[in-house]
Amino acid sequence: MLFRTLFFISILFSLSPAFSQNDSTMIRKLFDEALIRGKSYDDLRSLCKGIGARLSGSTQAQMAVEWGKRKMETYGFDKIYLQPVMVPHWERGNKEVAWIQSSSGEVVPIDILALGGSIGTNGMLKAEVVEFKSLDDLKKASKASVQGKIVFLNQAMNPADIVTFTAYGGCYGIRGHGAVEGAKLGAVGVVIRSLALPEDHFPHTGSMYYEEGISKIPAGALSTISSNELSKALEKGKVTLIMEMDCRDFPDEPSFNVMGELTGSEKPNEIITIGGHLDSWDAGEGAHDDGAGIVHCLEALRILKTTGIKPKHTIRVVFFMNEENGNKGGHAYATWAKKENQKQIAAVESDRGGFSPDGFECDGNPSYVQLIKGFASLLKPYDLHHFEAGYGGVDISPLKSAYEGIPLFGFVPDSQRYFDFHHAASDVFERVNKRELELGCASMAAFVYLLDKSLE
Amino acid sequence: MLFRTLFFISILFSLSPAFSQNDSTMIRKLFDEALIRGKSYDDLRSLCKGIGARLSGSTQAQMAVEWGKRKMETYGFDKIYLQPVMVPHWERGNKEVAWIQSSSGEVVPIDILALGGSIGTNGMLKAEVVEFKSLDDLKKASKASVQGKIVFLNQAMNPADIVTFTAYGGCYGIRGHGAVEGAKLGAVGVVIRSLALPEDHFPHTGSMYYEEGISKIPAGALSTISSNELSKALEKGKVTLIMEMDCRDFPDEPSFNVMGELTGSEKPNEIITIGGHLDSWDAGEGAHDDGAGIVHCLEALRILKTTGIKPKHTIRVVFFMNEENGNKGGHAYATWAKKENQKQIAAVESDRGGFSPDGFECDGNPSYVQLIKGFASLLKPYDLHHFEAGYGGVDISPLKSAYEGIPLFGFVPDSQRYFDFHHAASDVFERVNKRELELGCASMAAFVYLLDKSLE
Repeated sequence: MLFRTLFFISILFSLSPAFSQNDSTMIRKLFDEALIRGKSYDDLRSLCKGIGARLSGSTQAQMAVEWGKRKMETYGFDKIYLQPVMVPHWERGNKEVAWIQSSSGEVVPIDILALGGSIGTNGMLKAEVVEFKSLDDLKKASKASVQGKIVFLNQAMNPADIVTFTAYGGCYGIRGHGAVEGAKLGAVGVVIRSLALPEDHFPHTGSMYYEEGISKIPAGALSTISSNELSKALEKGKVTLIMEMDCRDFPDEPSFNVMGELTGSEKPNEIITIGGHLDSWDAGEGAHDDGAGIVHCLEALRILKTTGIKPKHTIRVVFFMNEENGNKGGHAYATWAKKENQKQIAAVESDRGGFSPDGFECDGNPSYVQLIKGFASLLKPYDLHHFEAGYGGVDISPLKSAYEGIPLFGFVPDSQRYFDFHHAASDVFERVNKRELELGCASMAAFVYLLDKSLE
Repeated sequence: MLFRTLFFISILFSLSPAFSQNDSTMIRKLFDEALIRGKSYDDLRSLCKGIGARLSGSTQAQMAVEWGKRKMETYGFDKIYLQPVMVPHWERGNKEVAWIQSSSGEVVPIDILALGGSIGTNGMLKAEVVEFKSLDDLKKASKASVQGKIVFLNQAMNPADIVTFTAYGGCYGIRGHGAVEGAKLGAVGVVIRSLALPEDHFPHTGSMYYEEGISKIPAGALSTISSNELSKALEKGKVTLIMEMDCRDFPDEPSFNVMGELTGSEKPNEIITIGGHLDSWDAGEGAHDDGAGIVHCLEALRILKTTGIKPKHTIRVVFFMNEENGNKGGHAYATWAKKENQKQIAAVESDRGGFSPDGFECDGNPSYVQLIKGFASLLKPYDLHHFEAGYGGVDISPLKSAYEGIPLFGFVPDSQRYFDFHHAASDVFERVNKRELELGCASMAAFVYLLDKSLE
């Protein structure tokens, strides 16, 4: 397998002669197109306001597939495909309700959203609450202290982490695995503090998992304000949580990845994949997550085409289905590409919101990190300054095992506001700034332009 | 005067030995204080919601002076002064109204705000409109084409400028000098397209000037949407503008700069001034402009004090009065400092909003630009990456002629959203993100910490 890695290293040009004044002029044209004649903001509006939330398996997700195909047709991309993929189908049902009741009998309503994939409560669920500050604390608890209760996992994201994704990663366990760990100790339900930074009334949903052989219990997220209220009430004595969630699973549904290309002028059979995910959680409108990423990639390809750039390699934009609760689209894409013997040479994902661009990260051989560091001086006039080793994206990650040595790149916008909106009803079109979105599109176009030029 | 410049150069340490692991640890503490135990967001809320807009000469501006003094007392700064300064006093009066009337007689209301300093219309003003795309176009026009009409200066900010302040600078002339140039040709009024990037219904006010010997005519700003409507109506034929503005000047009022210090441990008589401006335009709440800058400086000093840092030089925070329409506070401060023979060794201003920090600019000798470039590696973990020659700030600019060779520094946050809110009713507390504000405070504290260490 070393051979493959060597292959990927050998496709890098030596960089210094690759770029010229002409490249600098070309990049300026890409930014002008995005900022002066850009379509991205209107495209995002039509996705968010014309369709809205689009969870895998929903009618809205199917509408989004058709929207994506139509957009690519309108922009005249060279090839447009729908790739079939089976996806999970979970529905929230009626809006959730919950109250906390203190020992004095006083009842206070709290903000709750079921976690994605949770079972419902089958009517009213009422039980005493036991609070833990982390998943580890829960794991260490005695069965007696948890049995028959609702576990409240009240771990706050660490505000001192400069990159908010780091803080998110630190809390991910309570959402993903809280229900399993609670059930092991006999809990009848679990509620978590939303993985969010601001103190507000928005609960944030997201994926959670059950394990074979461990009983399934309902799992919900509380807003940060409701979490503080519940914790405060628990300081005073026994608290009962009353909740109802109507959510349930349905059989898998057929859906699609949506793809369109600019055919390579020199090496049409070598493919650079760029993408984001078309599905979203069912609260909000999936504006930052990941409507912005979809539009970044759509607009990047439109800009490259409109400005008359003829990429050497084929640039394929993929709107992946089902990143949020299964990554079925990402897996189906990698499997299909491999099976068809496609030569995938690099992939770029945008799935961190539509904020002001910082740069790109590379999940790949250090020589690729050096490669993108070589883009920095050309992109400095656009305030792109972050070119580091790091993460690519969930949707493109299955390419890594299918194509050993393939470099994956992730678009990195400013992360400060991302967890204000992530997976919440507040992730709506109005929270995306037009210029920030447009600069992201231009950054993606410029990065792909340079990547295509740099790869043999 | 070369002597002075040499003095300022000589006060730089050689940099390499100046910083250590300890500095890196210290900077981490400053950021932790801002992000975990920060007061900035609550302080900005109390300034914006407890007082609101605070134009020079208004009761709110006086309330803001008292707010500033009280805050500094609460935080236990070493010395707190109010420095008297006489400021202009202009009032908007009743809310402005305006309509456009096409030749068919149809009347449509439009969004208008008087420019700051404008005279009123003295009842209803009704005249035909003549449109120009720039101040230069107006200057080239014939008297016959303008006489008796209302001039409409419809120059849009250039969206292709990456730094939005560049686009603002390109349009500044229509706001500052449109009335004078219109009056020279016999216009009876002037309305401008707001200096703003988004298409929305918010008109943006700002300073404008009259000239001795040129008759004064009323000047207002239209929202970008109203500007587009007016321009479209003019394409179809003659358009009449009907407007009323109640604004007027009053005699100058006494007001104050508010100052507080951390006394230097080694050189208490050498002063690093840091500041923003306390006054704001009367639309909105002056949240980004410049409540954020006030809070950046207030919180930076609080953080330095709380973390136990003993600066070598005296760090003086100044809340300047009257940046928006006269800069009387800035001039009074420089004059006073000079007269008192104070040794001012550097000044830092924050007046570009409360957005995610990019870095700092230096208006000074190239050796100071090199100095701050030397801060970059210590500040990279906080995504501070912009250390360049550039601009300091309006309030601190009079120090430049009072102290030849003094380096001025400007805090540089991301500029993309600034002209969504600038001088408009939309510049409210809710438009400031808590983390972005806090990171700005910490950046200011870290910069001042390093500057104090670096200067002899």
